[in-house]
Amino acid sequence: MLQKQANTIRFLCADMIQKANSGHPGAPMGLADIISVLSMYLIHNPKNPTWLNRDRLVFSGGHASALVYSFLHLSGYDISLDDLKNFRQLHSKTPGHPEIFTPGVEIATGPLGQGIANAVGFAMAAKKASLLLGEDIINHKVYCFCGDGDLQEGISYEACSLAGLHKLDNLIIIYDSNNISIEGDVSIAFDENIKERFKAQNFEVLQINGHDFEQIDLAFKTAKESKKPCLIIAHTKIAKGALELEGSHHSHGAPLGEELIKKAKEALGFNPQKTFEIPDDVRVRFEAVVELGDLLQAKWEQKVKNLSEDKKALLKELLEPDFSKINFPDFKGKDLATRDSNGMILNEIAKAVPGFLGGSADLAPSNKTELKDMGDFPYGKNIHFGIREHAMVAINNAFARYGLFLPFSATFFIFSEYLKPAARMAALMKIKHFFIFTHDSIGVGEDGPTHQPIEQLSTFRAMPNSLTFRVGDGVENVKAWQIALKTNMPSIFVLSRQKLNALSDPIFGDVENGAYLLKEEANAKFTLLASGSEVSLCLKTAIKLKEKNIICNVVSMPCYELFIKQDEAYKKRILQGKVIGVEAANSNELYRVCDKVYGIDSFGESGKDKDVFEFFGFSEERLSSYIISLCNGD
Amino acid sequence: MLQKQANTIRFLCADMIQKANSGHPGAPMGLADIISVLSMYLIHNPKNPTWLNRDRLVFSGGHASALVYSFLHLSGYDISLDDLKNFRQLHSKTPGHPEIFTPGVEIATGPLGQGIANAVGFAMAAKKASLLLGEDIINHKVYCFCGDGDLQEGISYEACSLAGLHKLDNLIIIYDSNNISIEGDVSIAFDENIKERFKAQNFEVLQINGHDFEQIDLAFKTAKESKKPCLIIAHTKIAKGALELEGSHHSHGAPLGEELIKKAKEALGFNPQKTFEIPDDVRVRFEAVVELGDLLQAKWEQKVKNLSEDKKALLKELLEPDFSKINFPDFKGKDLATRDSNGMILNEIAKAVPGFLGGSADLAPSNKTELKDMGDFPYGKNIHFGIREHAMVAINNAFARYGLFLPFSATFFIFSEYLKPAARMAALMKIKHFFIFTHDSIGVGEDGPTHQPIEQLSTFRAMPNSLTFRVGDGVENVKAWQIALKTNMPSIFVLSRQKLNALSDPIFGDVENGAYLLKEEANAKFTLLASGSEVSLCLKTAIKLKEKNIICNVVSMPCYELFIKQDEAYKKRILQGKVIGVEAANSNELYRVCDKVYGIDSFGESGKDKDVFEFFGFSEERLSSYIISLCNGD
Repeated sequence: MLQKQANTIRFLCADMIQKANSGHPGAPMGLADIISVLSMYLIHNPKNPTWLNRDRLVFSGGHASALVYSFLHLSGYDISLDDLKNFRQLHSKTPGHPEIFTPGVEIATGPLGQGIANAVGFAMAAKKASLLLGEDIINHKVYCFCGDGDLQEGISYEACSLAGLHKLDNLIIIYDSNNISIEGDVSIAFDENIKERFKAQNFEVLQINGHDFEQIDLAFKTAKESKKPCLIIAHTKIAKGALELEGSHHSHGAPLGEELIKKAKEALGFNPQKTFEIPDDVRVRFEAVVELGDLLQAKWEQKVKNLSEDKKALLKELLEPDFSKINFPDFKGKDLATRDSNGMILNEIAKAVPGFLGGSADLAPSNKTELKDMGDFPYGKNIHFGIREHAMVAINNAFARYGLFLPFSATFFIFSEYLKPAARMAALMKIKHFFIFTHDSIGVGEDGPTHQPIEQLSTFRAMPNSLTFRVGDGVENVKAWQIALKTNMPSIFVLSRQKLNALSDPIFGDVENGAYLLKEEANAKFTLLASGSEVSLCLKTAIKLKEKNIICNVVSMPCYELFIKQDEAYKKRILQGKVIGVEAANSNELYRVCDKVYGIDSFGESGKDKDVFEFFGFSEERLSSYIISLCNGD
Repeated sequence: MLQKQANTIRFLCADMIQKANSGHPGAPMGLADIISVLSMYLIHNPKNPTWLNRDRLVFSGGHASALVYSFLHLSGYDISLDDLKNFRQLHSKTPGHPEIFTPGVEIATGPLGQGIANAVGFAMAAKKASLLLGEDIINHKVYCFCGDGDLQEGISYEACSLAGLHKLDNLIIIYDSNNISIEGDVSIAFDENIKERFKAQNFEVLQINGHDFEQIDLAFKTAKESKKPCLIIAHTKIAKGALELEGSHHSHGAPLGEELIKKAKEALGFNPQKTFEIPDDVRVRFEAVVELGDLLQAKWEQKVKNLSEDKKALLKELLEPDFSKINFPDFKGKDLATRDSNGMILNEIAKAVPGFLGGSADLAPSNKTELKDMGDFPYGKNIHFGIREHAMVAINNAFARYGLFLPFSATFFIFSEYLKPAARMAALMKIKHFFIFTHDSIGVGEDGPTHQPIEQLSTFRAMPNSLTFRVGDGVENVKAWQIALKTNMPSIFVLSRQKLNALSDPIFGDVENGAYLLKEEANAKFTLLASGSEVSLCLKTAIKLKEKNIICNVVSMPCYELFIKQDEAYKKRILQGKVIGVEAANSNELYRVCDKVYGIDSFGESGKDKDVFEFFGFSEERLSSYIISLCNGD
């Protein structure tokens, strides 16, 4: 029966890809046997895909999406046979790579390696949840399928290192070892001893023939009992069952062809004339899961009912965080580095919101992200990610998707580059994930150009579904957090290492408009529009210029993305005269709202921050001269 | 004597950092003993830092820059004591992290992990050079210092996996294992079995006490004889010699304090009142290297003289590539995907230029980057990097810095995110490194938003010291390469998966101006400015609009960075009427030269490329409607 189930999946996948004339049949057909066995182990409730104690299933190789959808369909999730037939079509429920709008997809995958880190994140979240709510309430497993590509990507090592460190015995990774890569045999680029590699990272490692049902079954049994995270190395044939394309790299990323599919069906006892065929007994077998899932969840609900009142209240707060309890600090009139104001805000949020947690890539003392007296993961809220920016963010993406947590990820702004691929996935999924990027701009000073962000602000402002806040003082910082907490997408905080002067109250508009009038005079010839550390520079320069009868308004723009969405009337009201964008960054996107941009078009320099700012023109003197030159029409 | 040499380095570093009041004393003082021993093994010629057969020395932890500079000074490189006293000051020869304008610095480092991949790259380049020129000519070693942070970063695993695969017996990595990270003891985030990890990656692994001169000496001796890449795990104390700060994470990133330095000097027999002290015997000892280096190079030059004429000619071509020999294809009038035209160009360059080589992160058949009949690394020119984008680029940075090679790195444009941190270092160093990014824009189609670049174009355009070419056809592609080959900085090629229509000849300007007039009419009301796949869309739309008496010029802009540098007269000449930027990307930076931007401000969608383009407004019909709406003042 398992064989028939597996073959049904194989041909569903082949048919989906053939109909779409696009997709990846190799991995789905190679993994069909394993997933058929896993269907007997997986504890979930397809009728309620968000049941908290379900096993999490992650397909790190998102290109195996045909397998994902066919498995979810057979298991009873709300994905119809028509959805399968619409595979990879515009606005279908079954896009090219799994996305979270599809019921049963835990997390979006596609860029390789990240899914493994997501799975580690789910397992960490489960550990934490279990400690908070009890082992009776949270005791599920996390399963993750991955391939050679995932294991070649650096993020997989980073994430598994943390999995081993935290002894995540709830994590089971299935490595689809098929020896095939796009450029040919895997061995041309990959000859690590995978078993020893994972043992060095404190995993238990099992090796099986991925087409032998008994071996697969025994492996899952053993893995579930393991006291460590477990890797199952499953030796498979890519496109198993696809006759002459079995074992060939040509089966990786292109349809198999109608004729071959027909012959393959015939060879395995399926009707070659039928497509999308699901034998009745196969359907019945898979559907048993749905009923079982309902029963399991009902039993679990009973346990939740029996929880202590404290635990019940905690669960409620985790599920529905109440931000009104946060006691935001009052920074009015206080000169502070924004990394410092941000650190204080983080601590207040963490005190008030039980699901708020996070950490830094080994820079907590510099990022000011330590949550004081709140302990370390798994018992406490501080997660020491080590110098692993990419894994940190993919892990926190899973925390955010788990259902109970609000994670933050911290590092220097320049190292946002190391984590960008996972930040993008956060944005794609529109999840609440907070990014704390300190050591903004050339203000970093002596550490020099390798550590001074120039183009990073433009990068994040260009990323859809996210808000980038470059705040000018503590008050803006608080307001930015208040917006971020109620916004269903990632928020990025860009914060200074150096002290910034406190700003005055808005004259018109506010942080929620993205930009607001901070200083207004009658008949202004210029508007100086700035963010972060350049706002007070502009204020001082405006005063200096007034002495020379050059009247400038000043606009603070903590959030570009919010500002460009304002209506024309608002923009007109706050942008008067010639608008000069002033930012110690590349900032070419500011031309959208400015006539000129006074930015930086080279890399930075190593030196005292004052000297470096001066060199790049960010001093009252030099900015004034520039504005005067504009008056003279230079 | 070695101890005295080491202590001299320790206090030079401590003094440099104290005087700058900024820097990282921990690692330099911890490594002083090892580098003193290494000075006896290192084969180099400080009077000629570019001698081809020198050993390469890479400090992956660039924050140990005080160590780098003090060692280079003592070894006789053109770095004076005054330069050391100017440590981390604006425009000094001794910036916060090592940069390549400093004599003796092989490659810029700072962002952790990359230096290890650079070292692997140097070792690969040496293997290749040795096969090309003979083992007599190239037989040097590559030494790399790294720390815990480097080994936590994913890129270190990626790179070492390749080092093991290629059995790089010329590579010796010294791991400064001091158990200290910024957040505290390393074990809070890192408990891998490093020895087993590296053995699983096919390294030889040695373990020593990093303060025991005999053990250090034996380790280097053994490592030099090893038939595999070698890791020396050196157990050290951070800030060794810094009294109560020895072994403390407080010594990592801040000056030790004058008082402590004085006491430490006293304790080790140095004059506490003196700073920047170099005892005469220490100076003499280090200076011996300079003389030896001269001798070694002279002997080597003799060997070069004795080379066969063929080899001599090859060496000359490697040192001074002659691009005039390239037989660029003629794509005039040919409709092609630009990934295809690019593949043909690559092959022609590789045939004509011996030092031109490269590879893809396991996407060569899709990127069309296979160099046909030119074999695989190390014997041939095709490097199979595996799915390791980040290591690929850091390795190729080293190829570019080696002195003989012109490397290219390829992947899908979306995965440029995985390699961006290393691409940035290429730009910072202004090296010739070619990036081949295919599968541009939503034109990727069915693979969906995880695979469709949106913000990546903005990212690369915002990066200083680089040119991003998004070409519209094969002819532009050739011209872009001609510019790239003569430009001393990285060039980024953004190429389509789908077929593009051949464009007509420029009417005014050309690719070298960044943008040029492709279609001009009298009294144009609009200029449609586009790049890549949107250029022919604009041409077709302009024809359609002319039927409605709306006259549009069309500008093709293959390179934004070149275009914005043109003078106002040029820009005025080609931008007539209202300028509408048309790109299937975020493209907010286009506001710098456009009145409106018709781009994409969300993530993409999975579907047939035609459907996806249509959905996002990139069809003649929808673009025309938009332009008409502008006429109507909607």
